[in-house]
Amino acid sequence: LSFTCYEEQMGQISDLLCAVNALHWDARTYMPPRGAAIRGIQIATLKGLARDIATGDGFRAALDTAWDEADRAGPDDFRRHAVEQTRREVDILRRLPKSLIVEAAELGARAEAAWVQARQDDDFDGFAPFLERTVALRRQWAEAIGYADHPYDALIGQYEPGMTLARLKTLYASLQAGLLPLIERARNLPKPRLDILHGLFPIPQQKAFSTAMAARMGYDFSRGRLDDTVHPFEISFGRTDVRITGRFRERWLPSGFFGVWHEAGHGMYEQGIAPALGRSIFATDLAGLYAVGGASFGMHESQSRLWENRVGRSPQFWAMHFGALQATFPEQLKGVDADTFWRAVNHTEPGLIRVEADELTYDLHVMFRTELEAALVTGDLKVRDLPDAWAERVQRDLGLKVPNHQGGVLQDVHWSSGMLGSFPTYTLGNVMSSQLFKAAGAESDVAAGLEAGDYAPLAAWLGTHVHRHGRSLTPDEILQRATGTALDPCPYLADLTRKVDQLA
Amino acid sequence: LSFTCYEEQMGQISDLLCAVNALHWDARTYMPPRGAAIRGIQIATLKGLARDIATGDGFRAALDTAWDEADRAGPDDFRRHAVEQTRREVDILRRLPKSLIVEAAELGARAEAAWVQARQDDDFDGFAPFLERTVALRRQWAEAIGYADHPYDALIGQYEPGMTLARLKTLYASLQAGLLPLIERARNLPKPRLDILHGLFPIPQQKAFSTAMAARMGYDFSRGRLDDTVHPFEISFGRTDVRITGRFRERWLPSGFFGVWHEAGHGMYEQGIAPALGRSIFATDLAGLYAVGGASFGMHESQSRLWENRVGRSPQFWAMHFGALQATFPEQLKGVDADTFWRAVNHTEPGLIRVEADELTYDLHVMFRTELEAALVTGDLKVRDLPDAWAERVQRDLGLKVPNHQGGVLQDVHWSSGMLGSFPTYTLGNVMSSQLFKAAGAESDVAAGLEAGDYAPLAAWLGTHVHRHGRSLTPDEILQRATGTALDPCPYLADLTRKVDQLA
Repeated sequence: LSFTCYEEQMGQISDLLCAVNALHWDARTYMPPRGAAIRGIQIATLKGLARDIATGDGFRAALDTAWDEADRAGPDDFRRHAVEQTRREVDILRRLPKSLIVEAAELGARAEAAWVQARQDDDFDGFAPFLERTVALRRQWAEAIGYADHPYDALIGQYEPGMTLARLKTLYASLQAGLLPLIERARNLPKPRLDILHGLFPIPQQKAFSTAMAARMGYDFSRGRLDDTVHPFEISFGRTDVRITGRFRERWLPSGFFGVWHEAGHGMYEQGIAPALGRSIFATDLAGLYAVGGASFGMHESQSRLWENRVGRSPQFWAMHFGALQATFPEQLKGVDADTFWRAVNHTEPGLIRVEADELTYDLHVMFRTELEAALVTGDLKVRDLPDAWAERVQRDLGLKVPNHQGGVLQDVHWSSGMLGSFPTYTLGNVMSSQLFKAAGAESDVAAGLEAGDYAPLAAWLGTHVHRHGRSLTPDEILQRATGTALDPCPYLADLTRKVDQLA
Repeated sequence: LSFTCYEEQMGQISDLLCAVNALHWDARTYMPPRGAAIRGIQIATLKGLARDIATGDGFRAALDTAWDEADRAGPDDFRRHAVEQTRREVDILRRLPKSLIVEAAELGARAEAAWVQARQDDDFDGFAPFLERTVALRRQWAEAIGYADHPYDALIGQYEPGMTLARLKTLYASLQAGLLPLIERARNLPKPRLDILHGLFPIPQQKAFSTAMAARMGYDFSRGRLDDTVHPFEISFGRTDVRITGRFRERWLPSGFFGVWHEAGHGMYEQGIAPALGRSIFATDLAGLYAVGGASFGMHESQSRLWENRVGRSPQFWAMHFGALQATFPEQLKGVDADTFWRAVNHTEPGLIRVEADELTYDLHVMFRTELEAALVTGDLKVRDLPDAWAERVQRDLGLKVPNHQGGVLQDVHWSSGMLGSFPTYTLGNVMSSQLFKAAGAESDVAAGLEAGDYAPLAAWLGTHVHRHGRSLTPDEILQRATGTALDPCPYLADLTRKVDQLA
């Protein structure tokens, strides 16, 4: 028994889970309407086989041997980190009964198809039974994993190791204290020219501009592609095939390209995992973690938000690239200048849709979702009461009325696929994006590149400090090593304050 | 232990192989260029896991129990047939070493990517090393399976149970004797107006017409879809998700829609497998065969050729539907009538490309490929001598010079994916298509439907006599039950003779 034995089994797990990702990608892009039921079964079978390997006695023995071997390699050898993370993940996996995992996978595929239909028909009642079953399952799931304080902690922990509802509440309090006055200030600014974003922008040209800029940022299209979908996402079939999806609207320009750059940020993370940590054609290069996935969902989101907001919504970015956009849409953007455009895409206006929210109000969406999710999981909130509860929060936090379910509880895909507990990672990503951007910007070549429209130094810095580690370090370890501090909302609030100052 | 245990394991095998099909489909439609290497590994892993289950002791025990149970159900119970076929397939599988299967799968993915590139660059030398390795592997493969007369028999047998090179030679002799004089007659007919097929036909409209007719024939788009590819194919992820692909040319109208109807014919077979024989969401409905695949490649091809040629190239078809085509392309087809169009799409002219060959010369392409494949497998022909040998056969059989590799040895995908021994099934399909079409046409509702452009009775007849059985009967059993006779070239030669008579 040697490290090779461990690597071989990890390779099988990785291949199964990458195939699962391919089936998921297809389900959300090209699958015919009646393909959903069997797809759910197939995904469940493949996940079940992966779990059989991961929780089997053979893997346990291989993992122990690998641990001894990696431990001898020294405390900072990547294999040691990799094996350590795998042990933690397998430990959680062993607590989950197979029946629960299989049921959740099957339900996920069917619920997602039901959600697509319900969203189209604005029919919450059509989706409610699926959501009820999902909530019940995730409560069982939390009980199986175990938690100290709150069942929701077990769910967040899967996406963000070490995070708890209590820690989130503290973070949210700081953010709220910082954000609310900023939003108030921003709303009193003169209204920018939003009409320039509402022309007729043909989608093929939108895609051309979006993809050209994504390639400039560093997303590698020879190892990826962009497809259309309802709710954009990034997904990896291994570091040499990492796909992004988008949704474009002819009459609303910014959502298309910002969405692409967001997903490209996720994609660059996956494409940047060190070959030794991904699945390689040479078994000896395998490091023993799944080929896909970053340190956490929050760390992943930090990469997407960094490219979307820290870079893509900066005045420097549009000073440099507005000309290219104007050349793409000469009629529609006639007489507009870079500053006017930059102001328009940074307009603060509370809205109903999370994925279209401006930077200042985005986290409000996340915070009330966290509150609702936690209440659903404990049973304090019933699914049937969810639309009213949602409407109440939107009124309270954003000052808006919810006119329909499409603009309310049916807007996000997450619950349909069983991802309760993942929303907080968006806000964690925002916070971390500023921490990392600040640390990167302290390097002179990164700072100079940002002024000159050359993103290679920034991409290289992120590759070195974040991407290459894959899942072999925890988010806290990455933050500490890259920025010298733990999770900290101050750089994020500072970035937003600077933006409002610049807009004023 | 009960039948359920067998069904559960067959379900896992089926799910793994359907996921493999999804990965293959993606590789040939949307995969980014650098995704090929890891895709090959993933496919190999999934196939390997499927084989582990199929050849494992647990499945052997389950198969024995299932056999006893199915045997008690009576000699014509579908479960008995299903288990019998599975036993035969598992028996072959047990003879193949796992290392050989894994190597073939990995090689297949890389060789196919190399073929795409080589074909584009017209670079046979770039593909030759992959083909050499493929031929060597398939020879080992044949030895592992075993054969009585000729190693090629073991390879054909995988695609067409019971077929041998000797039986093919007899069939080919009959066909050649019938075809050569027909080709001679057809070539002396007045030349039809081929210029009408060479206008500028925008691809979106070609697709619209092709898919509307495919739906009319009975291909269910709610359980399928059409995508673009280099070499069109049909592939199933289970009977509720059966996909077809096409290749359209702006300046050559017929290849696009005939290709779609061909693949739709394959697709209807897969969509028509009885739910009890496919993967169902209720485990007790499983019948124990893979969810996909007909009785044989030849039987599958009989369905595609039937819709493409027996239906799609008939004078009745164009008398009924030429108006719709003309409405799609009013400028391009101005002044053309149905009879003129029908003559154009039935023009006989020896050409270099198999997939574009007319009905009379098509089998000549298959027959010389069979000859070359058999010689490659025995080693009588070396890969480096293949282009010359190919050119010599094309000169001998079709009277043409081969100007480049794209129009020669690099035209077909089959060898790149390791499918030596599959070409003969195209001719077997042609032969069977006429046998089945004749038997179906003896039913008055089918005959009346064909005259009226109503294909539901024909589709229903094929569903009942062919599709629903899936892989639970052999091709010989299906032919005998459906037509009352064994494999017989006479109906095919009669159909072609009638066509030449009509054209005269």
